[in-house]
Amino acid sequence: MTRYKLTLEYDGGPFVGWQRQANGFSVQEALEAAIFAFCGERPNVFAAGRTDAGVHALGQVVHFDLAREAEPDTVRNAINYHLKPHPVSVLLVEAVDQAFHARFSAQWRAYRYRILNRRAPLTIDRGHVWLVTTPLDSEAMRAGAQHLIGHHDFTSFRSSICQAASPMKTLDVLEVERLGEAIEIRAKARSFLHHQVRNMVGTLKLVGDGKWTPDDVARALAAKDRSAAGPTAPPDGLYLTAVGY
Amino acid sequence: MTRYKLTLEYDGGPFVGWQRQANGFSVQEALEAAIFAFCGERPNVFAAGRTDAGVHALGQVVHFDLAREAEPDTVRNAINYHLKPHPVSVLLVEAVDQAFHARFSAQWRAYRYRILNRRAPLTIDRGHVWLVTTPLDSEAMRAGAQHLIGHHDFTSFRSSICQAASPMKTLDVLEVERLGEAIEIRAKARSFLHHQVRNMVGTLKLVGDGKWTPDDVARALAAKDRSAAGPTAPPDGLYLTAVGY
Repeated sequence: MTRYKLTLEYDGGPFVGWQRQANGFSVQEALEAAIFAFCGERPNVFAAGRTDAGVHALGQVVHFDLAREAEPDTVRNAINYHLKPHPVSVLLVEAVDQAFHARFSAQWRAYRYRILNRRAPLTIDRGHVWLVTTPLDSEAMRAGAQHLIGHHDFTSFRSSICQAASPMKTLDVLEVERLGEAIEIRAKARSFLHHQVRNMVGTLKLVGDGKWTPDDVARALAAKDRSAAGPTAPPDGLYLTAVGY
Repeated sequence: MTRYKLTLEYDGGPFVGWQRQANGFSVQEALEAAIFAFCGERPNVFAAGRTDAGVHALGQVVHFDLAREAEPDTVRNAINYHLKPHPVSVLLVEAVDQAFHARFSAQWRAYRYRILNRRAPLTIDRGHVWLVTTPLDSEAMRAGAQHLIGHHDFTSFRSSICQAASPMKTLDVLEVERLGEAIEIRAKARSFLHHQVRNMVGTLKLVGDGKWTPDDVARALAAKDRSAAGPTAPPDGLYLTAVGY
């Protein structure tokens, strides 16, 4: 038995999300089919982050065990060959210790959220950014973000179907940066609640367009009530960029 | 009669190119249909650069005349509304003098060519970069590019169906920059021959992967023979970024 750690990139657009589901095609299903086509095995595949429908990954990490032993580069090339019709790509394969677990060994997850702030509709970036047509004050968004950094009860930013045992999380990084018409929000934490990044971004957007003050973010957090925070930002702009072990 | 100058962004993927053609849907046709839907007029539309099938634009410039007078922002919003199903977007509309001509008044055109240099297949960037899986030496490509800058006979880099009266062109900029796995090539000139940028990129790729030395680029240029230079790089990585007046 050999355990393989894979680093994956994918376009979340055509998928129902990472996780296998009855109602559509998932990234997990695409990957499992490619593994089976390569070696005839059907291992359980575990991922560091269960990305939702439409959410992208630049550095998702997964692991699985194979009875057949093969060079990591052979595994990568074979799986990529069988993944070909789908926008899913194995960037790296490493043979790892049986103690390694993609989800439970992870020390941190990093996400990036991309906003394009302009009047004109999207063309090349369709499905890959959130188009916000009202002018956003990124400095105000940055000030609002400061209130979310640290150890807090994130109930206000948690999806109603979140399965985490506790709403307490430590948010290590929440940066807002503007580059011309693009605004990028970078978040890093040991782990996140379901929809936490998209709910934080949807809230910071209210600050950016002047409907909220930066201090209103602190009030939303303190309320510990989902209805006190802003709406969920669309999945299009969200990227799981890296997982640390 | 008012003359409007439009700055356009588009994803070249679904189109047969800028120019109206019998064998498929062009960007020009999409734009003309949107103009007609907006105001019932069918003006001639002239573009600064006749981009080929699959080539993208971040700053294409076109002009046309309308009998109906309207605020530039109204023209932009109305045309964008009618363009909606297509990945074509009007970034800016300006009312200009009758002496302005998108093609003949242009002082320079700028293009960018994006290469992704890695083994793993494309996902998010499918159709938007050239995937080169052999390692490229971007410093050697940069050295090769130096031979092309300046006033030359570019016959070796000219498509056989090019309609320009002369193969003499002045290339002002040809920069090669690597950022991680991405290589970006930026070119600027008053005007380019048909396929010139893609033929230069296809040639520099031979230098990057070690099949050619940088000096071989000078020999290919001096040969004044299309067969002496490298193959045509795919359209996916090419972007018309800006036109100067």
